[in-house]
Amino acid sequence: MSMNRQSKNNSEGRNQKALQALRRKLPGRVSVDDESCFAASLDNMRLSFMPDAVVKVQAAEEVGAVLKLANKYTVPVTARGAGSSATGSTVPLRGGWVLDVSALNQIQINTVSRMVTVGPGAVTAEIQAQVEAVGLFYPPDPSSKKYSTIGGNIACNAGGLRCVKYGVTRDYVLGLEGFYADGSPFKLGLALKKYVSGLNLRDLMIGSEGTLGVITSATLKLLLKPEKRWTGMFAFKSEAAALKSVVALFDAGLNPSILEFLDRQSVTCAERYTGKTIFAECPRASILLIELDGYPAEVRAQRKQLLKFMQDRAQAQREAGTEAQAEALWQVRRTCSQSMFSIADTKLNEDVVVPIQKQAELIRYTIALKKEISLATPTFGHAGDGNLHVHIMYNRSNPDDALKAKAGIKKLMQKVVDLGGVITGEHGVGLAKAPFMEIQHSKAEIAAMLAVKTALDPKGILNPGKIFEPFEVWDHEPVKVTLPWDHR
Amino acid sequence: MSMNRQSKNNSEGRNQKALQALRRKLPGRVSVDDESCFAASLDNMRLSFMPDAVVKVQAAEEVGAVLKLANKYTVPVTARGAGSSATGSTVPLRGGWVLDVSALNQIQINTVSRMVTVGPGAVTAEIQAQVEAVGLFYPPDPSSKKYSTIGGNIACNAGGLRCVKYGVTRDYVLGLEGFYADGSPFKLGLALKKYVSGLNLRDLMIGSEGTLGVITSATLKLLLKPEKRWTGMFAFKSEAAALKSVVALFDAGLNPSILEFLDRQSVTCAERYTGKTIFAECPRASILLIELDGYPAEVRAQRKQLLKFMQDRAQAQREAGTEAQAEALWQVRRTCSQSMFSIADTKLNEDVVVPIQKQAELIRYTIALKKEISLATPTFGHAGDGNLHVHIMYNRSNPDDALKAKAGIKKLMQKVVDLGGVITGEHGVGLAKAPFMEIQHSKAEIAAMLAVKTALDPKGILNPGKIFEPFEVWDHEPVKVTLPWDHR
Repeated sequence: MSMNRQSKNNSEGRNQKALQALRRKLPGRVSVDDESCFAASLDNMRLSFMPDAVVKVQAAEEVGAVLKLANKYTVPVTARGAGSSATGSTVPLRGGWVLDVSALNQIQINTVSRMVTVGPGAVTAEIQAQVEAVGLFYPPDPSSKKYSTIGGNIACNAGGLRCVKYGVTRDYVLGLEGFYADGSPFKLGLALKKYVSGLNLRDLMIGSEGTLGVITSATLKLLLKPEKRWTGMFAFKSEAAALKSVVALFDAGLNPSILEFLDRQSVTCAERYTGKTIFAECPRASILLIELDGYPAEVRAQRKQLLKFMQDRAQAQREAGTEAQAEALWQVRRTCSQSMFSIADTKLNEDVVVPIQKQAELIRYTIALKKEISLATPTFGHAGDGNLHVHIMYNRSNPDDALKAKAGIKKLMQKVVDLGGVITGEHGVGLAKAPFMEIQHSKAEIAAMLAVKTALDPKGILNPGKIFEPFEVWDHEPVKVTLPWDHR
Repeated sequence: MSMNRQSKNNSEGRNQKALQALRRKLPGRVSVDDESCFAASLDNMRLSFMPDAVVKVQAAEEVGAVLKLANKYTVPVTARGAGSSATGSTVPLRGGWVLDVSALNQIQINTVSRMVTVGPGAVTAEIQAQVEAVGLFYPPDPSSKKYSTIGGNIACNAGGLRCVKYGVTRDYVLGLEGFYADGSPFKLGLALKKYVSGLNLRDLMIGSEGTLGVITSATLKLLLKPEKRWTGMFAFKSEAAALKSVVALFDAGLNPSILEFLDRQSVTCAERYTGKTIFAECPRASILLIELDGYPAEVRAQRKQLLKFMQDRAQAQREAGTEAQAEALWQVRRTCSQSMFSIADTKLNEDVVVPIQKQAELIRYTIALKKEISLATPTFGHAGDGNLHVHIMYNRSNPDDALKAKAGIKKLMQKVVDLGGVITGEHGVGLAKAPFMEIQHSKAEIAAMLAVKTALDPKGILNPGKIFEPFEVWDHEPVKVTLPWDHR
């Protein structure tokens, strides 16, 4: 028997012992059947790695119990909410246990302090709906909000549409409760607006993708719900014209709550797919979708200023007079996203960010890249914060295309960093961006991150293999599966 | 020769060698004269610990050079801006080198991305003035802003008056550049509104009081400057009445940008000191000072709602019709602070935070404490975020008083934590709050913080002795010195 095999057998023996201890400690919470394990083996990146077990906890202290045992037996633990991560960050790459916190989904609103305390399994849109029902507002607005959980949002510091005016998830997190890797409990921050006692481990947890601890509760800051919203859509003859308007719009003192950009590739794609031209007077336009919100008189004044501002810039425009009309405008954005699969079966959806003055240059680059790699590179996204979703569309069954997509994405990432940008603005690193970490960060920066990781998780049991270890997405075949949020 | 003495001599020899190397590396930057060392030996807490040298850097890379040498020779380094810390956090407790970054004070505004990039030595009020001149707004508003530097604000995650609506310093920090303890450079975050690549060491630096790294540049998010401001002052017959109104005011949907509270001890103190009654119709009142800001029509509507709301609650009220009148109202707040020294020569100024619903209970406690320890406990502060400055006034020369003050402050801290609050909301821990860390944090939490500290500063050269090591302020005699910000 070779050393390797012996070591493997030892490790299997240990895993069996750990699993027995877990079942004794938390009877009724542990599943090892294939169906449960498969469901917990993948996320929205659709690469499957089977765990040894899935533990669906029903109370916060059970998270501590799971981690104590995992730490004792050195079992990998991957925390999971809805599993809608776009980067593979919730996939149990090294096996071990999936810690399913989706049942910890309480939502408790305090209207005086304007805060809400939620379990990590609470669905973001449900939190928004409940606080809006009492006149309050939780602004972070990831596109996945109808199914993604707040724990996942915190784990990747989710962004979304409204960041241009309201910031990202991190800006709303006040207190976190949970457990360190060794199962000891933490309270990082409290339900207070000011807190500067000791090192700020709360914010270190935010965006750490389950590698430093597992949260069981979060207290979020709320705002007053804006009294009025207005939506308008503007067509431009080119991406450059649209993106120059974005820059000028900020310089002119406008204050949009949403500012979305769609390039001509995206628009053309949607127009072909639906057979309808979005702006009849200018087909294949580049589009800006703009929302204003706030006090009614302010929204009216901003609208007036915006329409005047766009007069000589946009080729056409459309306003939403009602909620239904606004919804119809937003449907354009959603159609663009769906319609891309009519070009090819695989979409690499990047979430890069560049300074807003550099967006036009980034788009010029995506158009050049399209020619260079002969693959479509439709791009849309949050132009108000320079966060553009560059897509590379290819057919997986075509090995040539796959190679070109892989080369294209690396070039894109380098370009983004050269422009002063970042490889990920709202999805996180997970597995998908791990190969690009060295483009973004110096050796000293990565060493510092790893030192912190080791300090808080010395045995490396929390979500091992993520962020820091290069992973080649292309070497792994995605599984064909319909997930709850798949369109149609 | 005892081991201790030998070790001390060795360490002195090493320090001499380090100093020689530093002078060679950075000629003209190093001072060792008594005057320079004394000036850098203290901050606003006025306890003096002499450094071996003061290094006044003139460029960012010089910070790296200083840290490389300090790390090599294991010399303590304490970073310093204006030295206005209230907690002793900028004092070189263990000697070594004071790293004076006040000359790194550049301010560079980007009106399109609405960001400002500043050196750590830039004075906060100067940043505010420059961005307001181009229609932008940096909201964090610590009372020390006329002299405190942004590096210090970031080091203690400074708060101030406007946090109730606008949040704290952390909420405006996007990118930090600087150096780790070993002198290697970092860029943590960039001049971007979204950034989730790797572990969030940027936010870990914020509030770390110079114990994890030294920043040389920060990019801050800016808002549009509110078009209109309104200030009003309201008198109440009791603290309970004032603080109940604070709770009700949020429940009623009001959205103040400032909401300051003054208890009757503070008001009485000011009235005796000036010989004038603030509200002639109700002397010795408890006071709320409220600012509204935003779009003019919104401010008008909020003002109307607020005045109606206060009709049955306040005993008297006063509005500022002009800037000068507003300034006169704010002068009341400032007079309260100054006038306290007419009661006793020493002021323990705490910056505790409790949930806003618990503020009335905290004030009841400060009044009971006043009776118990026979020392005045005037309290005012930021009632919109539960951040009250509880003062204990005593004469230092009276050893009995000092003992009572010391006992009182410990009791107060325990009460604050029992109420779900925090021992420091905006000053940081430094030396002053170090004895109370164990009241606030569990052993596991402190162990996690120390593990992170050791991970990033293995030799412990950055600001040693702060935050984590108990320090008895009372055992040290403050020096008598006039600092630039002393009143009159």
